[in-house]
Amino acid sequence: MPPRLTQYRLCPRSRSIRLALAEYGVEVQLLDENPWEWRQSFLAKNPAGEMPVLEFENGLTLCGAYSISEFVAEEVLPSATTIAPGPPPLIPGNREDRAEIRRLIDWYHGKFDREVTRELLIEKVYSSMRPSGPVAPDPGILRAVRANLKYHLSYTGYLADTRRWIGGDELSFADFAAAAQISTVDYLGEIPWNDYPTVKVWYQRMKSRPSFRALLGDRVPGTAPPLAYSDLDF
Amino acid sequence: MPPRLTQYRLCPRSRSIRLALAEYGVEVQLLDENPWEWRQSFLAKNPAGEMPVLEFENGLTLCGAYSISEFVAEEVLPSATTIAPGPPPLIPGNREDRAEIRRLIDWYHGKFDREVTRELLIEKVYSSMRPSGPVAPDPGILRAVRANLKYHLSYTGYLADTRRWIGGDELSFADFAAAAQISTVDYLGEIPWNDYPTVKVWYQRMKSRPSFRALLGDRVPGTAPPLAYSDLDF
Repeated sequence: MPPRLTQYRLCPRSRSIRLALAEYGVEVQLLDENPWEWRQSFLAKNPAGEMPVLEFENGLTLCGAYSISEFVAEEVLPSATTIAPGPPPLIPGNREDRAEIRRLIDWYHGKFDREVTRELLIEKVYSSMRPSGPVAPDPGILRAVRANLKYHLSYTGYLADTRRWIGGDELSFADFAAAAQISTVDYLGEIPWNDYPTVKVWYQRMKSRPSFRALLGDRVPGTAPPLAYSDLDF
Repeated sequence: MPPRLTQYRLCPRSRSIRLALAEYGVEVQLLDENPWEWRQSFLAKNPAGEMPVLEFENGLTLCGAYSISEFVAEEVLPSATTIAPGPPPLIPGNREDRAEIRRLIDWYHGKFDREVTRELLIEKVYSSMRPSGPVAPDPGILRAVRANLKYHLSYTGYLADTRRWIGGDELSFADFAAAAQISTVDYLGEIPWNDYPTVKVWYQRMKSRPSFRALLGDRVPGTAPPLAYSDLDF
């Protein structure tokens, strides 16, 4: 039986782990969970109430993108000498390179998530799912989030402009974290692509990877992404 | 010249790194930074504007507790065979053990920080430092934070009751992250110690470590911790 990944389809951390596992050829069975429901059965798996959660057949349960990504990264330690080359390491390079990659993972899954994606999900998705009836997004919060987003896209543009990949010379989990965050914001129709051409070129490369295909096909009931969302040539 | 650690004395992530470095016998020169000032010279070091930042003499700059703690953890890889035993690994054990330790690092530096410490610092410290004059804490926010804190202390009590250390059988960075978060909340006089006796026993052990001494002596202008804060026998 393949491992089971409990996730929410617009959760950027879940998305980054799906990308990483797909790159490694690890097939998972997806279990959908709605983050605003706080179901007891989900809290029994992860008392933190956070996604994703990865469960193996032997009972091992890994909670959260940090724990899972480092667990996967340890599968192929950069110092390991392998005869048949497997997938490239998730956090490649020497100690300094890996510190830089982790700085950027933290940037996207920490700062970007807190200042942009989490707020957008609350205002544009969760608020419309309330049992007591939908609540309209707060225009003041949307304005603040869009100002934050500009700053984050400029910084991503600077990285994309000066490096081969977000974390340095090699593709790494920093790319998956950044692309996952940006893909959720893009699903919500909030990325002004024409203003950030270098971000667009990098994201096009990410979107064209086979690992990305499943994400682009996902839909969440009650929402619809813009037409260009799943278009590889947007 | 020793490495320089830019930090704020009540920042729990800075505190956890200070503990980890002291356990490793790494002396650092401390540079104080006020997180609410967003000084250009600090943003030049870490554009994320987050602490701590560790700078080495050779120019290497590490940003944030995630990047720094994993960098230090890689110094002593659990698989390394050393003749003279150095300090114990920061993230010890096998892959599964390390995944559990990372789940708890994320719990304290992610969830606990977001739901308790960050809010308390904003309400009780940063709000009194505004150039336009101090603002009183919001009683509604304090009430919500105290309710969150109860839940977190119960969970910490459950861990302390069922394990030798927070992350498992061995002392790890999960203990430093948890103790750092709790020490900041304790400095602000918010820990009802008598309600959580097993947390208290674990925290007493942490507080008695030589690495903790410098933290307990720290004071921030305009604030004073309760008398028991630096008392080892509280």
